[in-house]
Amino acid sequence: MTTPHERLRELGITLPPPPPAAASYVQTRLASIGDGQSLIYVAGQISREGDKVLTGRCPDQVSVEEATRRARLCALSILSQIDAAVGLDSVFEIGQLIGFVLSAEGFGEQPKVMNGASDLLVEVLGAAGKHTRAALGTNALPFSATVEVAAVAVVSTG
Amino acid sequence: MTTPHERLRELGITLPPPPPAAASYVQTRLASIGDGQSLIYVAGQISREGDKVLTGRCPDQVSVEEATRRARLCALSILSQIDAAVGLDSVFEIGQLIGFVLSAEGFGEQPKVMNGASDLLVEVLGAAGKHTRAALGTNALPFSATVEVAAVAVVSTG
Amino acid sequence: MTTPHERLRELGITLPPPPPAAASYVQTRLASIGDGQSLIYVAGQISREGDKVLTGRCPDQVSVEEATRRARLCALSILSQIDAAVGLDSVFEIGQLIGFVLSAEGFGEQPKVMNGASDLLVEVLGAAGKHTRAALGTNALPFSATVEVAAVAVVSTG
Repeated sequence: MTTPHERLRELGITLPPPPPAAASYVQTRLASIGDGQSLIYVAGQISREGDKVLTGRCPDQVSVEEATRRARLCALSILSQIDAAVGLDSVFEIGQLIGFVLSAEGFGEQPKVMNGASDLLVEVLGAAGKHTRAALGTNALPFSATVEVAAVAVVSTG
Repeated sequence: MTTPHERLRELGITLPPPPPAAASYVQTRLASIGDGQSLIYVAGQISREGDKVLTGRCPDQVSVEEATRRARLCALSILSQIDAAVGLDSVFEIGQLIGFVLSAEGFGEQPKVMNGASDLLVEVLGAAGKHTRAALGTNALPFSATVEVAAVAVVSTG
Repeated sequence: MTTPHERLRELGITLPPPPPAAASYVQTRLASIGDGQSLIYVAGQISREGDKVLTGRCPDQVSVEEATRRARLCALSILSQIDAAVGLDSVFEIGQLIGFVLSAEGFGEQPKVMNGASDLLVEVLGAAGKHTRAALGTNALPFSATVEVAAVAVVSTG
């Protein structure tokens, strides 16, 4: 069985360093639920590449394809945050993703965009990466980022 | 004491088949929290009747009354998903609803609309159906659905 | 060590009475997670002062500074709800805040606004008040409130 880090290598993906919190909060928080497992809450991760926030509204300023790629980058930041907190090998399951796409009025392809995030989690984590999801649109996001995704997962903490 | 399924019959409600996930995710995910109980995360359920997504913005395209009915249908899909996963009888409590209403600017009656969902849960589940809630508006939802509601509940899996 | 109530006094803050639910739901819900701890889900708290909802969009109708103050008031309502349910002394950690700022298109300073809520939690609860956060914008909120914040925390329930 391959580990998440081996799968990242096979996919040619380098996990970015976990982005620091943009303000007065923390990126992850653990809540023990017994049997050596914990919930891990992961703060909303906005679309970015390195230090650059990827901005703009879908689909008039940013195409659906590019927004989908940006949702994938949000999921990559989520993995990076979990890896920094407890290590990717300890992910038991992703419980919930909540994802917001900066959307022009009338735009309704948020599920397609959010598949960028969902597909990455399954590619890297296998069955443990399967999750429930709410895909939503909005007229305004921090720094005008195209996508923001928060998560709750179950991890083994010993 | 009547069971949830008996209450559905008394209310003349037929639980719809659980809608399939619109994309790369799953509709429910369980996280064991000990004592034979689990959290169940339920993916965002959009307003639909059978295969038809019920679309349009409140209140200029869809009235508050009709949007309220649509929020009720979202809650019915949530019940249907929980029933398919673990059976409605095993619901211990609904912890949290997060509901989004496709809203024209300046519209602020999301609590009234979301009561459609909240009331149904209490009608069917009794005290176990009482929940916390965030009612929100937005300018864009998947497929231009009028309402989307996600949930977290506690269920007996013992 | 000072208690949360002592810190509130030092800060010159009087906890408001917990606002009643605006509709068919409850303000808090507990889910036992073992070891004498529970998750507490707190319903979305909108910006208000006493009985008055503080309304208007950021930044064209309400300044960033004033919106930040209103986010702080939302956090104060969250503390008030937790205090009414289980007592502030029993807070072990705040797991997750989800905050929405009523936003004009193109506005992207939601993190700054939400710091009003985040900073208050840390001022009152110390390390236990540190939390993950999703800061989001939207075009419509209940009663046109400027800010709405929901929370999940871990509390000792003995």
